[in-house]
Amino acid sequence: MMNTPHLQAFGRHLRKIRSEKNLSQEKLGLLSDLDRTYISAVERGKRNISLLNILRLADALEVSPATLMMFEEVADA
Amino acid sequence: MMNTPHLQAFGRHLRKIRSEKNLSQEKLGLLSDLDRTYISAVERGKRNISLLNILRLADALEVSPATLMMFEEVADA
Repeated sequence: MMNTPHLQAFGRHLRKIRSEKNLSQEKLGLLSDLDRTYISAVERGKRNISLLNILRLADALEVSPATLMMFEEVADA
Repeated sequence: MMNTPHLQAFGRHLRKIRSEKNLSQEKLGLLSDLDRTYISAVERGKRNISLLNILRLADALEVSPATLMMFEEVADA
């Protein structure tokens, strides 16, 4: 069930957007009310993030939820 | 933590797309390998669906993950 390539692709995309916003994991954690270690795990594809947490991150990053979902397709979809 | 308005908004959007594709909950369940009762609960905003299940539904519905996330904003975001 834990499809790591998809989670990793999402994580890389999240990290890219966060970096473009010049936010540290800690700062994003404060803005989204999520733990820094949780954000780190999501960025490494280690967690299957929930819809509500995706929405929290999108809100904190000031991007649309759809933008957060625009990560590269994974071959074994 | 369970922000029902957001989950309900996602659920309504999912149901709309599913209906447009003329798929029953049961058929979507078969296509996505998710239980019909789970899909019913998601459509009613009763479940905080995970990223991997969002991707499964998008794949089964033949829409992009971003399209599945384009539901109306909720005031108390």
